[in-house]
Amino acid sequence: VNQALIEEARLRIAPIAQRTPVLTSLTFNTAAGVRTFFKCENLQKGGSFKIRGAANMILGLSPDDLARGVVAYSSGNHGQAVAIAARHAGASCTVVMPSDAPRSKLEATHGYGAKVVTYDRHRENREKVTQAIHSRTAAVLVPPLDHPLIIAGHGTAGLELLEQAPEMDALIAPVGSGGLVAGCAVAVKGIRPEIRIFGAEPEGANDTFVSLRAGRLVEVTPDTIADGLRSLTPGKLSFPILQRLVEDVILVSDDEIRAAMRFLLTRMKIVVEPSGAVAAAALLSRKLPSNLKSAVVILSGGNVDVEQLGTL
Amino acid sequence: VNQALIEEARLRIAPIAQRTPVLTSLTFNTAAGVRTFFKCENLQKGGSFKIRGAANMILGLSPDDLARGVVAYSSGNHGQAVAIAARHAGASCTVVMPSDAPRSKLEATHGYGAKVVTYDRHRENREKVTQAIHSRTAAVLVPPLDHPLIIAGHGTAGLELLEQAPEMDALIAPVGSGGLVAGCAVAVKGIRPEIRIFGAEPEGANDTFVSLRAGRLVEVTPDTIADGLRSLTPGKLSFPILQRLVEDVILVSDDEIRAAMRFLLTRMKIVVEPSGAVAAAALLSRKLPSNLKSAVVILSGGNVDVEQLGTL
Repeated sequence: VNQALIEEARLRIAPIAQRTPVLTSLTFNTAAGVRTFFKCENLQKGGSFKIRGAANMILGLSPDDLARGVVAYSSGNHGQAVAIAARHAGASCTVVMPSDAPRSKLEATHGYGAKVVTYDRHRENREKVTQAIHSRTAAVLVPPLDHPLIIAGHGTAGLELLEQAPEMDALIAPVGSGGLVAGCAVAVKGIRPEIRIFGAEPEGANDTFVSLRAGRLVEVTPDTIADGLRSLTPGKLSFPILQRLVEDVILVSDDEIRAAMRFLLTRMKIVVEPSGAVAAAALLSRKLPSNLKSAVVILSGGNVDVEQLGTL
Repeated sequence: VNQALIEEARLRIAPIAQRTPVLTSLTFNTAAGVRTFFKCENLQKGGSFKIRGAANMILGLSPDDLARGVVAYSSGNHGQAVAIAARHAGASCTVVMPSDAPRSKLEATHGYGAKVVTYDRHRENREKVTQAIHSRTAAVLVPPLDHPLIIAGHGTAGLELLEQAPEMDALIAPVGSGGLVAGCAVAVKGIRPEIRIFGAEPEGANDTFVSLRAGRLVEVTPDTIADGLRSLTPGKLSFPILQRLVEDVILVSDDEIRAAMRFLLTRMKIVVEPSGAVAAAALLSRKLPSNLKSAVVILSGGNVDVEQLGTL
């Protein structure tokens, strides 16, 4: 994954992905002690940054590939992204989702024209379910992560930020497998190597935090409300990028995530899902180095059931 | 209120008011049957468009006036706007609010540094409470509406839209006293007279709808969840502008308002208060002329208690 691949991705995904707005809040700046720019991928098409990777892969497929359709597995956001990109490209699309995924995610994926196949998360293996569909239909598998085109697609958010928040001296993004922060780090450091890059992880899914300290992939058992970040290990492709370019990973508790969601909802009027709010939570709980002048926070997604908002 | 006054306002408020983003949703376009651009004044500083008028008036005050401070009465959004603008200008600020205003609005106004004076909506008259403060302190009264500088300030949203959504052939905005739609109509029609202007009102607060048909100010008794639009009559200054420039006022029910709020929250990930969602509700319930190609909807505010969101 290099700068050129990300520049290419930017051109390829332009017809689908939005250049999402960057918001600010004086009240947040005061609370966090640092001038903050919020990159609103929760307002992205499909409700998360995932469209950047999915569109980059799908819009690069050959007409023959597109005719066979695409298949993906996803707990939610990646599925919606693949469905949107496939519809745009005129390809049929199947998304394999856990039967207990948030209702809003199941409905939205179906609404974007995808065939949704559910499986029992406790009894079935999603890779096997997906593989069976792949074998039967020869549909192209669109991986959710750890593929060069997916990571390059996610890096396009970093390119936009160089223009939208040139004052930034740090960027912090949520870390699941690490593809978003890896892509953005390559994009940003390639042009502005002095910008400091941080990841944010839930305490209950700290696989990247632990792995970076161990110098190798360490597996953890995730337990966090941030359902999009319940990765067991960092991605094999992302990890060496993180080792090279990320200064540190900041851990936040589920309560700190909820407090950040509440601030974003009540004061900034935007819906951010738990996974999407971890980087904001790291700033709001003042866990970043105190010598930053202005930081960009990536709000990576907003797909959360409305009932959960009333309980914040 | 003319084009020049609005252009002046734009320069004056630039240090405070945000150029709010314009969002789109393919799903909304399909549901409404028209390509729609959402002007997100809910993401404006203070959570509503009101900062545009308040900043225009307060930043135009003399140093002597500013030294005496400002006072305003408001059920919520105007108070926050005045508090923010006064703090920016270095003026002390008192806001008179009903004691049963949404908690979030009371807290936010106080948080912006204003002195909040509450009164009993059923027993006291807010103008009298405000007048008493004015008499005692000589603070400058910042009216919430129907003042040329306030209406011109609100019109700056229209100027931005000419640049942000040049494809629009119609603009629709919520109508309380009518200052927002009047200001935007002057701004837009002055440059693009072919653009059609609509207002949207709750069925339970249809004073402008009725007044336009009667050709004079008619008073109604408001009953609607849209607490920011419970005006008894259109503004005296706004009304002739509306008669001249607004094609029609569209009425929506409280249920249609709730459905629009829910769509905006769940699909577009933004918090919009009942008053802020009436124009979106008019489109979503397909009440606009069917020959529009692309419409701009102004989402005028986002200040709503989080508990209310869980019940949508």
